[in-house]
Amino acid sequence: MAKVIEKSIAEQLRPIFEPRSVAVIGASENPWKFGGRAVHLPLAAGYRGAIYPVNPNREEIAGIKAYPSILDIPDEIDLAIFAIPAPQIPQAMAECIKKGIKGGVMLTAGFAETGEEGKKLQDEMVRMAHQAGFRFVGPNSNGIWSSRAKLNLIFMDAPPPGPIAFISQSGTLGQYLFQAATRKGYGFCKYVSSGNQASINMSDYLEYLAEDEDTKAIVLYIEGIEVEEGGRFMEIAREVVKRKPIVVYKGGRTSAGSRATLSHTASLAGSDEIFDAACKQAGIIRCYEVIHPFDLAEALACQPLPKGKRVSIIGSGGQCVATSDACASLGLELPEFDPDTKRRLKEVLPPHAPVPTNPVDTAAPGDPMTTPRIAQILAQLDYIDGIIISSPWVGRGFSPDRIRELLNEAEMVTSIPRQYGKPVISTAIAMHFAATDLALGLFREAGIPIYSTPEESARAMYGLMRYGEIRRQLGES
Amino acid sequence: MAKVIEKSIAEQLRPIFEPRSVAVIGASENPWKFGGRAVHLPLAAGYRGAIYPVNPNREEIAGIKAYPSILDIPDEIDLAIFAIPAPQIPQAMAECIKKGIKGGVMLTAGFAETGEEGKKLQDEMVRMAHQAGFRFVGPNSNGIWSSRAKLNLIFMDAPPPGPIAFISQSGTLGQYLFQAATRKGYGFCKYVSSGNQASINMSDYLEYLAEDEDTKAIVLYIEGIEVEEGGRFMEIAREVVKRKPIVVYKGGRTSAGSRATLSHTASLAGSDEIFDAACKQAGIIRCYEVIHPFDLAEALACQPLPKGKRVSIIGSGGQCVATSDACASLGLELPEFDPDTKRRLKEVLPPHAPVPTNPVDTAAPGDPMTTPRIAQILAQLDYIDGIIISSPWVGRGFSPDRIRELLNEAEMVTSIPRQYGKPVISTAIAMHFAATDLALGLFREAGIPIYSTPEESARAMYGLMRYGEIRRQLGES
Repeated sequence: MAKVIEKSIAEQLRPIFEPRSVAVIGASENPWKFGGRAVHLPLAAGYRGAIYPVNPNREEIAGIKAYPSILDIPDEIDLAIFAIPAPQIPQAMAECIKKGIKGGVMLTAGFAETGEEGKKLQDEMVRMAHQAGFRFVGPNSNGIWSSRAKLNLIFMDAPPPGPIAFISQSGTLGQYLFQAATRKGYGFCKYVSSGNQASINMSDYLEYLAEDEDTKAIVLYIEGIEVEEGGRFMEIAREVVKRKPIVVYKGGRTSAGSRATLSHTASLAGSDEIFDAACKQAGIIRCYEVIHPFDLAEALACQPLPKGKRVSIIGSGGQCVATSDACASLGLELPEFDPDTKRRLKEVLPPHAPVPTNPVDTAAPGDPMTTPRIAQILAQLDYIDGIIISSPWVGRGFSPDRIRELLNEAEMVTSIPRQYGKPVISTAIAMHFAATDLALGLFREAGIPIYSTPEESARAMYGLMRYGEIRRQLGES
Repeated sequence: MAKVIEKSIAEQLRPIFEPRSVAVIGASENPWKFGGRAVHLPLAAGYRGAIYPVNPNREEIAGIKAYPSILDIPDEIDLAIFAIPAPQIPQAMAECIKKGIKGGVMLTAGFAETGEEGKKLQDEMVRMAHQAGFRFVGPNSNGIWSSRAKLNLIFMDAPPPGPIAFISQSGTLGQYLFQAATRKGYGFCKYVSSGNQASINMSDYLEYLAEDEDTKAIVLYIEGIEVEEGGRFMEIAREVVKRKPIVVYKGGRTSAGSRATLSHTASLAGSDEIFDAACKQAGIIRCYEVIHPFDLAEALACQPLPKGKRVSIIGSGGQCVATSDACASLGLELPEFDPDTKRRLKEVLPPHAPVPTNPVDTAAPGDPMTTPRIAQILAQLDYIDGIIISSPWVGRGFSPDRIRELLNEAEMVTSIPRQYGKPVISTAIAMHFAATDLALGLFREAGIPIYSTPEESARAMYGLMRYGEIRRQLGES
């Protein structure tokens, strides 16, 4: 992808992610069609700009006046959404360029992914766009979401806004993952189904997100990177990770999966060893299950970076065991405590609790302040870099006094990242008491991520510790 | 554990899992206390037997007449629930034995897990119980659930009944996992927080579950098995797996986790290599994340066993890629199709779909019958042992015609396990359309497990294929 050098990437993609006005080419009344949802969903999400349906056969769509062509729209348009058959695209694009539009989202499929002829059509479009400084998502995109514009073109309810940006080379899987992640409570500022990446590729998105104020952590679903693009991508990634973490799931790491990428996005998955080595060098964190990058990004977006890989765990019984196993399997260390700390912990732990060790088994303490007090003691240790609190609270009724207690408890924990610059994350396998829900709500509010299994928490802490390591390495290099 | 040889294990544990009457020793009006929940929760779960609260200071509890001691109850009692302090247990147990009670659940803690003195008290109880043929769960148990009796002593809402039995050496983690698994839609016939396992240990539970009609798959959370018990446990397991699958998560596989088991259940986690080798020999399937055994058990409890490890995947785009990667990583094979099958698939696939390969990329077909027809073609292939269908349905409205279509589609898929003896499982990463929900409901109804990520589905298929292999090996040995 040749770079349009006149404008910064931020300026080039602003019409796409922050459009003041949108034209939907091929608009439809039917919300099950691309051209229908592109009118209906932004409205449902609260998009505040103007929407202009374009359809020569309709007077109005969704109660909005429709225009026969782009050129008939009386106002300026920032973003054109293409939902017309592939053969009609060149003419529509020519009209967009004539109208001075600078950004597009091409939902239409039937280009390079279908073979030689589609590839030719796509190349023609790219040439035309490039000359005019017109950048577009897709073709073969499943849509985008931008929290700043409240622009939702994804076939789902608008997600809560938040600090994660997600770029997916797969439309369907991307959308499902995006939805699954929002159900886990993670918030997003951007989602892009990047499709064939004819005009804007992964490197461009990375470059854009590096500057984007809303983005605190970046998740990528990649199936393949063109050989001639690999070097630039890794170079840009290496620059981006000096400021923001990148977490990637790479489809096609096995020969069976690779065969599937070929027929899916016509991507050559390439050697997995080479990709892996390149990620390590660029400081990209790699995950091996599709949902894991989001778990990591949630912590990376809101917690301070630990100075090392030494973790302490607070919990009760089997949760301590499973969390310790999960952490140790990922290479995190659980340092044993010094005698003075053991003494201090013993004073706080209930009498029936076992001798304090790391992990700290609180043995279902009667006193609700036990866990917060332990967390405070651990946060002060110079040989502990981060804390995982496993299922801290079990409800004991829901009185006003209990709520006051809860507020104190939560503050003693939520203050730690700020106070000591050390990350705190929590596991809540099952949330089933009103008091527990409230406590966890206070955690979330303060930016403490809540995970639902010991392994999720361990992976998130690993992500923080790994990114801390990457930042130290890149800072030194 | 010496075996009481007069009665079968089924007879010995029947008073615990199918009690006609229950006495709660230390009953309380407060549902946050052990002695309170043991009265309240069975009532809430619909327990149909008689409940007798025992408390010398109360006339009635939860509207039920209370008795000063066990011996004052006029009727026969099958099960005694102990919710009194440890020092009072010996006398209460003596009274239970005098009363002719044969089963107990000991929620009380403060025994072997606290040190030498507690160990002595526990040994004394075991001696007393053994002589009288009295068997009890615990001490230091967090309760049990039995679907047949609708007996719920767990600090949560009663779960839906189902084919999975779960025995956990950890109380808190066990309960959280049990709850998390029920939220995933999995049904249970038994849950036991086995506590210190003074009277009934893992081997005993396994022996019991082997005969239990309700149990189709067994999940164990184990922290450690006593050295002198290891041989018997593995011997019994080897017999059980000839009839029912056993899936285990073992806490303490790392040195950090092992340190935690020591302080938690006083278990010596032992060498992980030895445990692993023993599992392989006994035919126990081992998982490495706490929630995974439940995902496997769900498929194992309801799907036919595949004859080999050759899987086929149907899906769209990136889901094919991720599912293929996940399957291949677990050692499952994705055989390429013969020319005749490719030809037949091409006839069914939409024109814009890529050339058929395994995985079959349906490329978001317009025709709802595409996926079921492909599934039927694949089921007939003698070199395909199982099928994973990834996110099959996307809603297109919800008309009566659509519902009729859905019924046909679903039946063409749900008939495969019966018709061809091959397992079918499905992934539905995000269910967000009414029509999708209905289709998935029809799947569930027919016993097709639904998972929420490609990796969950791959692991479940692996579980089926691994258990098929185990059964063939044990059958031949």
